[in-house]
Amino acid sequence: QHNQSTTDTTLYTPLIPVNRQSLLNNVDVLANMRVGFRNEFFDGTYKDSRFVNEQFRLEIKGKVSDKLYFRFRDRYTRNPETQSIDNLSRSTDLAFVRFDPNEQWKIYVGKLCADWGGYEFDANPIDIYEYSDIIEYADNFLTGAGVGYLPNKSNEFTFQILNSRTKTFRELYDTIPGITEAKFPFAAVLSWRGNFWEGKFQTIWSYSIFKDATHQYMNYFAFGNQLQLKRFRLQYDFKLSLENLDRKMLVTSWIPGHEAAQGVEYMSHWVSADLQISRIVHLAFTGMVDFAYWNGNPDPSPDKTKKLRTAWGYIPGVEVYPLKNVNLKVFGNMVGRVYRYSKYAQTALGQADYDTYRFTVGIVTPLLIL
Amino acid sequence: QHNQSTTDTTLYTPLIPVNRQSLLNNVDVLANMRVGFRNEFFDGTYKDSRFVNEQFRLEIKGKVSDKLYFRFRDRYTRNPETQSIDNLSRSTDLAFVRFDPNEQWKIYVGKLCADWGGYEFDANPIDIYEYSDIIEYADNFLTGAGVGYLPNKSNEFTFQILNSRTKTFRELYDTIPGITEAKFPFAAVLSWRGNFWEGKFQTIWSYSIFKDATHQYMNYFAFGNQLQLKRFRLQYDFKLSLENLDRKMLVTSWIPGHEAAQGVEYMSHWVSADLQISRIVHLAFTGMVDFAYWNGNPDPSPDKTKKLRTAWGYIPGVEVYPLKNVNLKVFGNMVGRVYRYSKYAQTALGQADYDTYRFTVGIVTPLLIL
Amino acid sequence: QHNQSTTDTTLYTPLIPVNRQSLLNNVDVLANMRVGFRNEFFDGTYKDSRFVNEQFRLEIKGKVSDKLYFRFRDRYTRNPETQSIDNLSRSTDLAFVRFDPNEQWKIYVGKLCADWGGYEFDANPIDIYEYSDIIEYADNFLTGAGVGYLPNKSNEFTFQILNSRTKTFRELYDTIPGITEAKFPFAAVLSWRGNFWEGKFQTIWSYSIFKDATHQYMNYFAFGNQLQLKRFRLQYDFKLSLENLDRKMLVTSWIPGHEAAQGVEYMSHWVSADLQISRIVHLAFTGMVDFAYWNGNPDPSPDKTKKLRTAWGYIPGVEVYPLKNVNLKVFGNMVGRVYRYSKYAQTALGQADYDTYRFTVGIVTPLLIL
Repeated sequence: QHNQSTTDTTLYTPLIPVNRQSLLNNVDVLANMRVGFRNEFFDGTYKDSRFVNEQFRLEIKGKVSDKLYFRFRDRYTRNPETQSIDNLSRSTDLAFVRFDPNEQWKIYVGKLCADWGGYEFDANPIDIYEYSDIIEYADNFLTGAGVGYLPNKSNEFTFQILNSRTKTFRELYDTIPGITEAKFPFAAVLSWRGNFWEGKFQTIWSYSIFKDATHQYMNYFAFGNQLQLKRFRLQYDFKLSLENLDRKMLVTSWIPGHEAAQGVEYMSHWVSADLQISRIVHLAFTGMVDFAYWNGNPDPSPDKTKKLRTAWGYIPGVEVYPLKNVNLKVFGNMVGRVYRYSKYAQTALGQADYDTYRFTVGIVTPLLIL
Repeated sequence: QHNQSTTDTTLYTPLIPVNRQSLLNNVDVLANMRVGFRNEFFDGTYKDSRFVNEQFRLEIKGKVSDKLYFRFRDRYTRNPETQSIDNLSRSTDLAFVRFDPNEQWKIYVGKLCADWGGYEFDANPIDIYEYSDIIEYADNFLTGAGVGYLPNKSNEFTFQILNSRTKTFRELYDTIPGITEAKFPFAAVLSWRGNFWEGKFQTIWSYSIFKDATHQYMNYFAFGNQLQLKRFRLQYDFKLSLENLDRKMLVTSWIPGHEAAQGVEYMSHWVSADLQISRIVHLAFTGMVDFAYWNGNPDPSPDKTKKLRTAWGYIPGVEVYPLKNVNLKVFGNMVGRVYRYSKYAQTALGQADYDTYRFTVGIVTPLLIL
Repeated sequence: QHNQSTTDTTLYTPLIPVNRQSLLNNVDVLANMRVGFRNEFFDGTYKDSRFVNEQFRLEIKGKVSDKLYFRFRDRYTRNPETQSIDNLSRSTDLAFVRFDPNEQWKIYVGKLCADWGGYEFDANPIDIYEYSDIIEYADNFLTGAGVGYLPNKSNEFTFQILNSRTKTFRELYDTIPGITEAKFPFAAVLSWRGNFWEGKFQTIWSYSIFKDATHQYMNYFAFGNQLQLKRFRLQYDFKLSLENLDRKMLVTSWIPGHEAAQGVEYMSHWVSADLQISRIVHLAFTGMVDFAYWNGNPDPSPDKTKKLRTAWGYIPGVEVYPLKNVNLKVFGNMVGRVYRYSKYAQTALGQADYDTYRFTVGIVTPLLIL
């Protein structure tokens, strides 16, 4: 018996030591992909068709040691330019380590995702066919540090201190008369994730303050709420951004000469529903509306209105999960946008209403490749 | 007995679960490299010497799940610029998934290699020391979808629908009077791979049609043939490209002012021989000739000829495989090119004949690194 | 018994074959990171604060087969531009294979690190908070080939032949009257690593000659010395670079019009001390001084001096290793620089003295992620 046992041990001792096995087991390499065939329309007229790699982000993440986690994500759909403030490529979304001293605390350091609330923002980008304006024009992959605190299983609080941007003030705004660049242009982000009725109702709420220049702040609120039933999921986000300096550059882009606008406000409602007809077939609908206001418009005209644009979005679609063991969906959907400018924006700023929509069929997968 | 068996099981249960083991086993990470020391000559005069990373492409590929395959290849020898049409980096050759519903069918989606026939094109780029003009100036990594059909073990048919380019018409051609951009600039590629006499004779034939603009097509034919004997391999490709708009931009580059040429034709013969002197030493020879014609030349001159250039290529070399378990070859070769312009191209277009050759020693390996 | 043994074998045969297991075991994927929160001062005045990804380099390295090694390192903090001479991205530090025919010889081919001596240069870049001028402005990731020879356990000799740069002469210097570009602008690097008193004293010495243009050379000497006691490590480097053409471009940058300077000399002393207070806490200090001379200054003025600048550097700091199993340090330090120009550089070239310092807290880790 003894001999045989010894032989066995020799025979089956794995070549790969336990440490390495645990690394191989706990670290995932993913290809986050969305590829589709788009048919694009502008103001009701067919414009063009093309295949598009809507998303391609390679990701490496996992537990690299006891209590230590790593995450890196890099996209191949954006030019990799090293950024002047945080020194990392613009194509790199995430590059951080997380250390969990115990089950209640987490510490993050590196290039992070600002932990803004809202389910739209929190989703894997491959699952968002079109972002609302308030997210689309935001700068959210920022370098800094954060802590997470989980007092119990139902609540998680996160607090982050980040650079407020990856580029210098000058690169973003050039110079603005009367405004002095901040010495530490920071973002402070506080978020709360709640979990109620055994996960049936969840929340991701947050408040952030961004300092862009001396006395120039952006205050951002996001309230995401999710109802998750057995075969039905409903998400609703309310988001509001009050910007002393136009950070999204949307209002700015409508001003003749494109000088940076001051006193800008963006507000967004976003709703997403997912109904499981069966394991394989889901019906999905996303709807959104974004409002853009220019409260600080210096124009003395009595016709001036604060609201400049209302942008609607609607995305009805079907999603099919043909494979049992792989998270891969085949989708067919319509992404419609309706842009409506206020009378003032039309007459004084020369903007014109327009609509776009596109029909797309394609695939989405956060493919585990290693 | 029972107890001992139980103990054994506990002792040897691998940390890595079976799913993950199969991923680790079936997915390959490769570094496709060719590095060499080049001595370059122009018109018979020594010009310079330098070490060159002729190829460096990282690749991840393999079976990621039952019936599902993934392939990604990215080069570090080309600037990674996001392309305006397909939204992916120009440096990324391949980024696709393949699903095989059964043994006879394959479905591809993503950034693909246009499945053009010919053995030159089908080879791993690290094995082609110099491409013929017709391949060198082609755009072949395109986004789209494809199906493969294998009616039996001797035949495989592939059909692809792809974007015809990664850039917009304007970026490639600026504007051309009288020509309207196509709304869906597509490429349709049909190819056939045949396998005869137990693999001794093989073919890769293809026909493609590219639509670049309204009524403006490129028709491309490639007929690749391979004889594989025990110690000798012979490959011959015939390729022909009929282009309403000059897609290769070669003829265009010879026209003063470089306006896009219309009615262009490229034809190519390519032959490659590999003789195994022993397992370790191979003799290799590649020869090619490319003809460039401008059938649509509007010049009314009676001296006008359609053929503008004949470009010869010859690559004699020795390849040594020093390692038994690794596909790594040390090569020494000469890459010679002879460019001969027609009398018309010389007098009317101001082109002049020239020759180049280079002697290179180096290594080639599609190195499996993980 | 026989049956049971058979059963066992079947049961425990690993899915992953031995070859692959050895690859998975011997190849490391690393994220070389340094992230910190910097508070920057200029001439004693607080300038700004920001989080910076000071280093982020992904690396794959290891033994890929019997006697064959591979190493690849790519940074995400530098724009990936393909270089005109060696054809590889500027962001790629290393991309080479190493073959060890036996225990005494090593052969390297690919993009290498010039094997300059000195401990500052030999360190992982994440461990150098600020490089001395002589390294900071050098071009050291070059393509070529090398051999290593280990006559015994105490000595290693390396000889490399590399391209002298990754860009063309014109890209670096434009044209310089009277100077002809070299046909083979090479670098030859000879280095010696010595190991004495059971590793207590070690050396990395080197001599390199770079040919930049016909009759235009750079001669570079580096003498690195290390004393390693139980809880104390002391390193001292002396480095000297004699440059016919100003390769570091430092002196050049001080000349009005920035024409390339000729007859330039850089000299550097660098010292680094590390004291282990405990396993967890280290005290670290780095000091350096760089001298820049313009021996070839054509100015006939009698006030001319050869020495133009003295640049001091001092980096006192604390380093904490909180984790037992992971090489990760939390650091807090000050990086101070003092730049002093000679009277001649001030009056004739218009340069002015300045000081900078910064306080940083952050983390450093060559994190093993796969």
